[in-house]
Amino acid sequence: MITQVKDYLLNLQTTLCHMFEQEDNTQYFQEDIWQHSNGGGGKTRVLEQGKIIEKAGVNFSHILGSQLPPAATLKRSELLGRQFQALGVSVVVHPRNPYVPTAHMNMRFFIAEKAGEAPVWWFGGGYDLTPYYGFEADCIHWHQTAKAACDPFGAELYPLFKQQCDDYFYLPHRQEPRGIGGLFFDDFNAGGFDNAFAFLQAVGNSFSLAYQPILTKRKTMAYTEREKNFQQYRRGRYVEFNLVYDRGTLFGLQTHGRTESILMSLPPIASWQYDYHANTDTPEAELSEKFLMAKDWLV
Amino acid sequence: MITQVKDYLLNLQTTLCHMFEQEDNTQYFQEDIWQHSNGGGGKTRVLEQGKIIEKAGVNFSHILGSQLPPAATLKRSELLGRQFQALGVSVVVHPRNPYVPTAHMNMRFFIAEKAGEAPVWWFGGGYDLTPYYGFEADCIHWHQTAKAACDPFGAELYPLFKQQCDDYFYLPHRQEPRGIGGLFFDDFNAGGFDNAFAFLQAVGNSFSLAYQPILTKRKTMAYTEREKNFQQYRRGRYVEFNLVYDRGTLFGLQTHGRTESILMSLPPIASWQYDYHANTDTPEAELSEKFLMAKDWLV
Repeated sequence: MITQVKDYLLNLQTTLCHMFEQEDNTQYFQEDIWQHSNGGGGKTRVLEQGKIIEKAGVNFSHILGSQLPPAATLKRSELLGRQFQALGVSVVVHPRNPYVPTAHMNMRFFIAEKAGEAPVWWFGGGYDLTPYYGFEADCIHWHQTAKAACDPFGAELYPLFKQQCDDYFYLPHRQEPRGIGGLFFDDFNAGGFDNAFAFLQAVGNSFSLAYQPILTKRKTMAYTEREKNFQQYRRGRYVEFNLVYDRGTLFGLQTHGRTESILMSLPPIASWQYDYHANTDTPEAELSEKFLMAKDWLV
Repeated sequence: MITQVKDYLLNLQTTLCHMFEQEDNTQYFQEDIWQHSNGGGGKTRVLEQGKIIEKAGVNFSHILGSQLPPAATLKRSELLGRQFQALGVSVVVHPRNPYVPTAHMNMRFFIAEKAGEAPVWWFGGGYDLTPYYGFEADCIHWHQTAKAACDPFGAELYPLFKQQCDDYFYLPHRQEPRGIGGLFFDDFNAGGFDNAFAFLQAVGNSFSLAYQPILTKRKTMAYTEREKNFQQYRRGRYVEFNLVYDRGTLFGLQTHGRTESILMSLPPIASWQYDYHANTDTPEAELSEKFLMAKDWLV
C-alpha cells in the first residue's frame, strides 16, 4: 500500500510542478530533499518570484512516528499505542495577480501498525480556493470539478466533503471562511483500499482541472496597486488561519517537523491594517458580501 | 485597587501616545472606545502610516469574566470558581526605519473575587525589544533601564524577570528568541498591594526611558530597500510568535475578545521567503550571530 501511494504522490508532485512551471514560464521549482532524524523525510519543491506565480510550494513528505498524536487517537481508541507512517503532498499557490485566487491542496495517507494485528489505514485530503476578487463562474467551475471527481464514488461524498471543507477553513475570530471552500475529507477508507485509493487519485487528478483554467483565465488581467494592496491585506487572513488554526501546520511545528517546508504555505508578503473595512459598492466589499460565506455554488 | 490601577494605566496610555506622536510628528493616534457584551470594554489607540511610526497600538482594556480560564487556574487551585477582572495596557510599536527595533510592553492587573473571601490579585507585565539590525549600545541601554526600574524593589528581580522574558519570547520551531528580551513577570504581589503597584509603575514609567532614546537615535538613519526587505522578513517571525505562541493573543482570540484590538500587534507588512539565510559577514547575519540569543547584556 505504501509503495503504491508513494508512487502516486510523487508523480502528482511532479505533474503539478510541471503545470505551474508552464503557467509561470519564467521560474522553476527548486528542490530540497530532506531527512528527519527519526527516519522520515521529504522532497520540498518551491517556486518563488515568478512572473505569474509569486510563491508556490508543492511538498512531499513521508513521516514515521512511534505513536500517533493525541489528536488522532482521541476518538479512535483502536489507534492507541500504534506506530504510524504518514505520506502526503501539500500544495499552496500564491499567484502574483490579485485576480487569481490562492489555491491549496492536500493528499495524505496514514497507516497505523501493531505487531500481530491488521494495519489500520485511511486517506485524507481535499482542496480549497481563496479568491481576493470574486468571480461566480470560477467558484462554480471549482465546485463542479470537485463534484465530478467525487460523484463516481457516491453521490453523498461531494455534499459531505464540501460541508467539511466549509467547517474546517473557517476563522472564528473573524467569523469568516478562509475562502470559497471545496473538498475536505479524513478517515476515508470506504470500499476497501483499492476504492479509497482510486478516490484519492480522482480528487488529486482533478485539482489541475479545477485550478488551471482559473489561473490561465485570470493571470493576464490588468490590475493596479489598489488590487495588489487588497490582496496583501487578505493574505493576512491566510496567515492567521494557518498559524492559529491549521492542524497540519500546528502539528508539524509542535512535532519538530521541517519548519521551512511547513511554512512554505505562508504568502510571500502580507499586510495588516487596523479595522479595515472595504467601501460599499466596491469589488472588495463584494468579496465579503457574496463570496466569503458557506453556500451551495451548484444550485 | 481597581480604580487606582485603572487611573494609572489610562494615564500611561495617554503619556505613551503623546510620546509616540511627538516622535513621529506626522500622524496622531485614532481612538476606539469599545464595550464587550459581558460588561468589559476598552480604549484602543492606533497610529498608522506615520513618517517614523509605521504602526503603533497602545491599548487599554478592562475585561470581566465569570471564571478564570484553565490556563490561570491550572497551578493555582485557590482561583477555581472565582469571577475575575483584568485590566491592562498593551503597547506594540513597529517603526518604519529598519534600524529602529520593534518594542512591546504589557502591564496587567488581575483580581479574582468570591463572596465571603478575600480577593486574590496580582500584577503581570514587562517589555521586550526586537531589533532588525543589532546595536550593542542599544541592548545595554535597554537592559540597564530595565534593571534600574527593578533594583529598588529587590536585586533578585531583574535577573529573574530577564530570564522569564528570554524563556517566554522564544520560537521553538525556529530555535530562536523573538528579540533581545527585557522583563517579563506574572503572579506578582510581593510586599502587598502598595509595593507591588509601585513596582508596576516603576516598570511602566521606565518603558519610555528605555525605548525613546533608541527611537530618537535610530529613526533618522539612512537605509535602502535591502534593510527594509530584511525588516519585513524578520517581521514574519513576529507574526509567527504572536499567532502561534503568545498567550495573550490566543486567549483573546479564543475568548471572543475584540479581534482588531488584539491583532493590532501584527506588523503593517511582513514577508516570508523560503529557506532564507543571510550571507556571511553581513549585518543581517550578525543579528542572528550576536543578538538573537539569551545572553547577559550587563556584564
